[in-house]
Amino acid sequence: MVPIVSFVGSSGSGKTTLLVRVIEELVKRGYKVATLKHDAHRFEIDHEGKDSWRHKKAGASTVALSSPEKFAVIKDVKCEWTPERLITSYLMDADIVITEGYKTSWFPKIEVVRKAHNLKPVCARDKALIAYATDVDLKAKVPLFKLNDHKRIASFLIKEVIKKHEPKEVSIMVDGAPLELNPFTASILKEGVAGLVRSLKGGEKSGEIELRVKLK
Amino acid sequence: MVPIVSFVGSSGSGKTTLLVRVIEELVKRGYKVATLKHDAHRFEIDHEGKDSWRHKKAGASTVALSSPEKFAVIKDVKCEWTPERLITSYLMDADIVITEGYKTSWFPKIEVVRKAHNLKPVCARDKALIAYATDVDLKAKVPLFKLNDHKRIASFLIKEVIKKHEPKEVSIMVDGAPLELNPFTASILKEGVAGLVRSLKGGEKSGEIELRVKLK
Repeated sequence: MVPIVSFVGSSGSGKTTLLVRVIEELVKRGYKVATLKHDAHRFEIDHEGKDSWRHKKAGASTVALSSPEKFAVIKDVKCEWTPERLITSYLMDADIVITEGYKTSWFPKIEVVRKAHNLKPVCARDKALIAYATDVDLKAKVPLFKLNDHKRIASFLIKEVIKKHEPKEVSIMVDGAPLELNPFTASILKEGVAGLVRSLKGGEKSGEIELRVKLK
Repeated sequence: MVPIVSFVGSSGSGKTTLLVRVIEELVKRGYKVATLKHDAHRFEIDHEGKDSWRHKKAGASTVALSSPEKFAVIKDVKCEWTPERLITSYLMDADIVITEGYKTSWFPKIEVVRKAHNLKPVCARDKALIAYATDVDLKAKVPLFKLNDHKRIASFLIKEVIKKHEPKEVSIMVDGAPLELNPFTASILKEGVAGLVRSLKGGEKSGEIELRVKLK
């Protein structure tokens, strides 16, 4: 996994505005940021009439667009993907993933509490809460930041989330769900696969290996 | 890999219109279709002012959106991803991937030739050409379909592309590029990884395994 932090708070608390400033600050300091937003409703993306929109409307379950500078994928799912699955599949190359929403996840959380909207925090009892961003005089065991203090929040994230993260060398998904590995099993998988792949033509200098196996 | 077919033809030949009808026809017959469009230029997706748009504008290199019915990912790349990489990473769950463009790929191709636009086919010498869709009286060794004959084209794709495809049980990417495996190596990798993963708690009934290894 990559380092993850989730910005939570009731609707209208100013999560996105703060998050956008924190992203800008982290990018300015040289970090590669990915974001993942949870949307309980239908979201609209893509523009009516564009080719990709027409493919989707015709019934394609996935549409992808690729250009020299970016690509986009829109994919139907039968049931919602967990954030872990999305992150493992698509966001692993970032230095930090910032999620919006996912209140009930295990992700370290920063809750945004704005006086005008929600005097009471919603994650006060959440052990994963690592800070508040607020204009309320809260009593809390975690650090309190002002709502406009995106610079200090960025520094806090670098110190407490990015730098404390220990990258895993091996990650594995089974039927779409991440599987926990102990260090011994991880090492056997890593050495076994690496040894084999590095002995193949074209695999001698492998840095990152992605292997997919379909079993009957 | 999944079965792939590419619709090619000069701009304005009516590729997208035909492709949309073929998608509708395949979906109607119960097939799961994914599409991949190559765009040589900058493409615009997402709507100005939306949260995901704001994340991207703030400098996030990847933004993802997830809802109970679909998800979307927009990702910056330093150099363009090959269609193989995109397909292996994102489109493997389809029964067929239809690409638009990718004239120089090895993918089986259907070329759209419309009298009003391009009398001369561009892929006439391409060994991967499997059919024309055209209103021109072409001399060709491959089947010719009329431009409005999406039903017969769908039947042709089912017979010649989907049903002739032999699914691989093992696929592997090394540093973003697919690596060819001979049956022996594929079998060793499959049995080795499957045996190990199925011996783990939670992995007993593995159907599909995705393994990522980062080497130093």
